[in-house]
Amino acid sequence: MDVKLGVLAGDTRAVARAITWVENGDPRGAEVIHGVYASTGRAYIVGLTGSPGAGKSTLVSRLAALLAARGQKVGILAVDPSSPFSGGAILGDRVRMFDVALTRHVYIRSMGTRGSLGGLNRATRMAARILDAAGFDWILVETVGAGQSQVDVHDVAYTTAVVMAPGMGDDIQAMKAGIMEIGDLFIINKADRDGADRTATQVESVLQLSMTTGWNPPVLKVSAELNTGIESVVDTIERHRAHLVASGKLDALKIRMAKLDVLEILKARLADTMKQQLDQPAVQAELEKVASKQSDPYSLADIIFEQSWRNT
Amino acid sequence: MDVKLGVLAGDTRAVARAITWVENGDPRGAEVIHGVYASTGRAYIVGLTGSPGAGKSTLVSRLAALLAARGQKVGILAVDPSSPFSGGAILGDRVRMFDVALTRHVYIRSMGTRGSLGGLNRATRMAARILDAAGFDWILVETVGAGQSQVDVHDVAYTTAVVMAPGMGDDIQAMKAGIMEIGDLFIINKADRDGADRTATQVESVLQLSMTTGWNPPVLKVSAELNTGIESVVDTIERHRAHLVASGKLDALKIRMAKLDVLEILKARLADTMKQQLDQPAVQAELEKVASKQSDPYSLADIIFEQSWRNT
Repeated sequence: MDVKLGVLAGDTRAVARAITWVENGDPRGAEVIHGVYASTGRAYIVGLTGSPGAGKSTLVSRLAALLAARGQKVGILAVDPSSPFSGGAILGDRVRMFDVALTRHVYIRSMGTRGSLGGLNRATRMAARILDAAGFDWILVETVGAGQSQVDVHDVAYTTAVVMAPGMGDDIQAMKAGIMEIGDLFIINKADRDGADRTATQVESVLQLSMTTGWNPPVLKVSAELNTGIESVVDTIERHRAHLVASGKLDALKIRMAKLDVLEILKARLADTMKQQLDQPAVQAELEKVASKQSDPYSLADIIFEQSWRNT
Repeated sequence: MDVKLGVLAGDTRAVARAITWVENGDPRGAEVIHGVYASTGRAYIVGLTGSPGAGKSTLVSRLAALLAARGQKVGILAVDPSSPFSGGAILGDRVRMFDVALTRHVYIRSMGTRGSLGGLNRATRMAARILDAAGFDWILVETVGAGQSQVDVHDVAYTTAVVMAPGMGDDIQAMKAGIMEIGDLFIINKADRDGADRTATQVESVLQLSMTTGWNPPVLKVSAELNTGIESVVDTIERHRAHLVASGKLDALKIRMAKLDVLEILKARLADTMKQQLDQPAVQAELEKVASKQSDPYSLADIIFEQSWRNT
């Protein structure tokens, strides 16, 4: 199988293999990205973030089902930093939420740490590019809340939805500490339960304190479980998308995404290079000096940095 | 206040300020580390990891109280990637677990993300160095399980304890996926509850499958809540420490720690340098090419890497 051609043809086995490569830092992943990148840029990427228990995964499945029913191809990246697994094996329950007829419009992939910390952010970014090149119209990236994940969904998506459930006081706390700024819309899930109105009011009152720049983040009440309000979420995302296009912000966002892509790739590459550097015999002697306190890590880092990094 | 001298004198306000600096990537943090590093190496660093709900924080508090009662100075670094906060303010409940007479022997510091992903690992490493230089005999580093945190406790501590509670089947799953290898001892907390024996047996049977190199990780049953079995934990840590010293492994570990310290510092420094690089006007034009798909992020990363990194 030529994976690059497979991705471009929308073959999900090729997509799965390419994502595994970028997860593992396999050079073939870089090759695929290189080969398919010109075909990216069509997909619309939506991030959904929120605390465990907010019902994100059910909501994401409902959104995907609705979009698929409208003839759209939907890729889901379920980022789970607590899982050492990735792939599709553990997603059986979610797949069962879709009509059989729709499953071929929806691709779900869980992104785990695979034992290596730090690579999840890069892998998720690149997985989104691969799905984009494979012709998916929508990419839904699902993560736990800010700081709990190694993936900052705001840096991956064009539209970010913050998902909450009634009575989750922590969320309001979290909002004050930064999650408020990243939400383009706020979704109160489980809106059939007590306290949904109160939570919505709380969110709205916090929102009123913040500066807006042409877009006022709506607060929506939905029930993913009962499948109510899902259309309003899609409508709001579409409205936000239209706002980004009309204001020219989408182009700016795309340049920012390109920059973050490059940054993640460079970080991974430099981390590898430095690990090799630190394994060199000459450096070993210096490390022993640090261990025996004749030197210190900042001084040794200075030396390596000066030797390796060209002033530009 | 001269923070460096304050740290060396064991002043906790100086310690707190220095840790805040390293958390924020403030250059004054690097200066302090540089100035105090020669005074490090005395403290014994113990990592305690496990799923939320295993009762880690109560256990760590009990351990600290026991050690403090023996006249030892104990620093606790409670790593919480889900919290945007750091410092000491939210730790009131835990402090109340200590006798007033002991509190001056124990210093607790929570390490949060402070809104920036990725810096937590470096900050935790450097906070341990600062506590070490400040004369703490023991440093207890508490984190959530592998992959859930951005901090791999095994890379920070000489002895790593994996903490579990009865009936937490997930833990046994997690063990198979890697946590098993990092445990120098396994603590079944809440051992007064049903299922403790079964969990202990499960852990022991998984352990029997793994290779040992001179140290067989013990499985201990304790109750942090009831304050039983805590002495056995300290005894086991002391035995493991003696094993590391006698086998020469502690020296090797210290060189490894020095290497990881340098690596974390270099990674932070290079990430900063690259961010600046990507903000340069010449690079802007290249980023626009990536955004408009005339180029791709791997190709641009290649160019920047070749221009910036000296082949050594």
